[in-house]
Amino acid sequence: MSDSTPAQVTAAVDAAAGAARAFGHPDAVPMRIEALRAVADALDAAADELVPIAMAESHLPEGRLRGELTRTTYQLRLFADYLAEGSWAEVTIDSADPDWVLGAKPDLRRLLVPVGPVAVYGASNFPFAFSAAGGDTASALAAGCPVVLKAHPGHPQLSRRTGEIVSAALVSAGAPEGTFSVVEGLEAGKQLITEPAIKAGAFTGSIPAGRALYDAAAARPEPIPFYGELGSLNPVFVTERAVKARGAEIASGFIGSYTLGVGQFCTKPGLLFLPEGHGLLDDIVTAAEQVEAAPMLNERVASGYAGRLGDVSAVAGVQVLVPGSTGDAPKPALAATDVPTLLANQDALLAECFGPFSLVVTYADEDQLLAAARAFEGNLTATIHGEDDDAAELAELVYALQSRAGRLLWNGWPTGVAVTWAMQHGGPYPATTASVHTSVGPTAIRRFLRPISYQNMPDAALPKVLRRQGTPDVVRRVDGVLQVP
Amino acid sequence: MSDSTPAQVTAAVDAAAGAARAFGHPDAVPMRIEALRAVADALDAAADELVPIAMAESHLPEGRLRGELTRTTYQLRLFADYLAEGSWAEVTIDSADPDWVLGAKPDLRRLLVPVGPVAVYGASNFPFAFSAAGGDTASALAAGCPVVLKAHPGHPQLSRRTGEIVSAALVSAGAPEGTFSVVEGLEAGKQLITEPAIKAGAFTGSIPAGRALYDAAAARPEPIPFYGELGSLNPVFVTERAVKARGAEIASGFIGSYTLGVGQFCTKPGLLFLPEGHGLLDDIVTAAEQVEAAPMLNERVASGYAGRLGDVSAVAGVQVLVPGSTGDAPKPALAATDVPTLLANQDALLAECFGPFSLVVTYADEDQLLAAARAFEGNLTATIHGEDDDAAELAELVYALQSRAGRLLWNGWPTGVAVTWAMQHGGPYPATTASVHTSVGPTAIRRFLRPISYQNMPDAALPKVLRRQGTPDVVRRVDGVLQVP
Repeated sequence: MSDSTPAQVTAAVDAAAGAARAFGHPDAVPMRIEALRAVADALDAAADELVPIAMAESHLPEGRLRGELTRTTYQLRLFADYLAEGSWAEVTIDSADPDWVLGAKPDLRRLLVPVGPVAVYGASNFPFAFSAAGGDTASALAAGCPVVLKAHPGHPQLSRRTGEIVSAALVSAGAPEGTFSVVEGLEAGKQLITEPAIKAGAFTGSIPAGRALYDAAAARPEPIPFYGELGSLNPVFVTERAVKARGAEIASGFIGSYTLGVGQFCTKPGLLFLPEGHGLLDDIVTAAEQVEAAPMLNERVASGYAGRLGDVSAVAGVQVLVPGSTGDAPKPALAATDVPTLLANQDALLAECFGPFSLVVTYADEDQLLAAARAFEGNLTATIHGEDDDAAELAELVYALQSRAGRLLWNGWPTGVAVTWAMQHGGPYPATTASVHTSVGPTAIRRFLRPISYQNMPDAALPKVLRRQGTPDVVRRVDGVLQVP
Repeated sequence: MSDSTPAQVTAAVDAAAGAARAFGHPDAVPMRIEALRAVADALDAAADELVPIAMAESHLPEGRLRGELTRTTYQLRLFADYLAEGSWAEVTIDSADPDWVLGAKPDLRRLLVPVGPVAVYGASNFPFAFSAAGGDTASALAAGCPVVLKAHPGHPQLSRRTGEIVSAALVSAGAPEGTFSVVEGLEAGKQLITEPAIKAGAFTGSIPAGRALYDAAAARPEPIPFYGELGSLNPVFVTERAVKARGAEIASGFIGSYTLGVGQFCTKPGLLFLPEGHGLLDDIVTAAEQVEAAPMLNERVASGYAGRLGDVSAVAGVQVLVPGSTGDAPKPALAATDVPTLLANQDALLAECFGPFSLVVTYADEDQLLAAARAFEGNLTATIHGEDDDAAELAELVYALQSRAGRLLWNGWPTGVAVTWAMQHGGPYPATTASVHTSVGPTAIRRFLRPISYQNMPDAALPKVLRRQGTPDVVRRVDGVLQVP
């Protein structure tokens, strides 16, 4: 145990606050670009040291962790590229006009500036990509916000070592000391979100923990935004035509997706809706039984999984198809039910079961399918498997799902989140606490930026990018017209 | 009295929810453009009917109200123009790439969609521009969100009549019934923010009322964003050089700004910082004494003003320069103090006094000036009056102020908020509850939009703007490159 003391948490926050001005200055963007790339390079160079630590602490396999580290450094560099491109700052210039229709118009120059120090809470299931140097940290740093990371207790040594590498790389590129630091322990995490100098929080984890932090952030004398990704069921809906055209392929895809990473992805498909008489159960059961047992992240996750599995199995009308196993390294489990049972037992069946379990739900007709779709709360993803002829006919289902999910997939599987410009990783509550944002992709930076406008300000007091003379060549909107260099 | 019953509130929300799909559809943007313009035209056409109602209820003068109505319809048309321009939707397309560095990349198509029905709380001091058809309503409707307006009790008849005109104009342009409705009463307002179908709130008013609604929005089973503009002191800092160069001009500008609209603007300059020995007091006092008495908005505002004026005057070390008067139509008041007294009495002196009062604060040196600037919480605006030679020397002050305010002015006065692209009307708490957004200007729409991403979705199930074939010519980002048609 090495929980941070209250004084250590305060010291980390004070250091972040002290670093905020220099690190977040609009003229410091070139430094931040260099810093993000330096962090990426340093992490890549440390792969042979970090991956074994991650393997020992998370029980995830080497290949997965190396891939995750590659993704992590890719996204750091993607944010660096976005900073260089410049549109993220939303530079906007309005010329003065004494004869304007609403009266004399001043010279106004607007851009986005960092909100200030950010508390990032590492996730258990992505020791690299959603932890110390993960997407929340990368986007906050890119925005110009110092970060205090609350390490996840599932990988403390990795968090510490990653933190050292991140801190050193930042400083090597000219960032102030205190731009990044790591704190540990449950109490430290609670304290962190209440520290007055912390101006936003970012979190990936369970609904109870995320909601408690969200509530604490909202209850502060100065409430702050809290970007929590809490839980998702990621339902998959299969049409009759799709079953007929490629039922076996869907069955094997489903098994692969829900058991991937021992079912410990936030995008794991937790429910598969199939039409009555689909005839795929044998395929699905056989495939599920063939998946090997594999270790879960830690004991807490394993015991949580066992508990939820028991809750679901105990519902009258739920038939256990594959019992699987529980313990540190479970074999996948599978159950089946129908829409009326699902709708009558939403508390038990429409709650996330984090681990290698999914529920097959048969629907009698389109009305049942829509009723089920409309029963869901917010989700990260929702998926439809259909044929070309279905696409235009499914408008009701598509609308029901896009009202409830951040990403809609067609004929795919939700596990695997591409770090690209058009990705949306988010969704209505409880998928996230802030559906107007994403936590993956370049626009995740927007969570940590606030607009300011300068009125009739002389060049000498302006950030370089807003000056009248010698402004860099970036994307800007001038007198309402978007200009791309 | 005509408070809405709980059933009437629920009916209004249900109607809004029923309208949300058709009104918010991405393919319905042309209809929304027409609808916003129809609302603007209808309000302009009704000016001679509406302005007298507003005069009777708000006691504001005709010229001001006609100008405010012009601003209101201007911003409705500005949002229509922004919808037509298209960049607001953030259309983003990533091509599939089986050989991508992080593994096979899917076809991803992203845009912003409306969050759903919005509760808008009208303000007392802008019966047009921040009320029924004001900026919050205009931006929510532009986003595709139906609106349920909670009318301000200071102008109920105007809210009702404006609401009728807005509703009729929306329907005439093809918007569904229920896209806009009005509810009244304190209890109705409280109920509205807890209605499950309401997905965001927008508010302009006092800190206690705004905080209560913010807390209620955050405490919902599904928390929702609440965009409240609550209070602002709008400090003005004058350098020694500026006093020497144009002290008399500053004195008269100050009086004009703080007494404008009987001091009932959210951007009223509440404190004026002058260097010791400035020699301007006589000018300021004389000018303040010459301002005529004028009616306040309503009794509640008048009695609140009298109370705050008493609190400030009672502070030891505060010298009342101009006692002014209280009552329905007060004459402006003015007091003076120094920075040490200000810092020792922050609860009384760093709180908004809504009405025709301001506080002149003398500072002994730059350290006192900075200490005062750093004592402020969040503000909508902060202003510096300086000469050219000051601009580069005031970096510390500029940073202190831009950390605490949404808009920084140079040699101007904060009253008057230009509705333009580069305007920022917002700021850290308690200026607003969401400093990452603005409530004035086209980007105010961003408060009511959430991103969704479609993965490998066929054209038939996509909004037109995201299709592969026959897409409209709008601003988009394709494979990371921003394209302006």
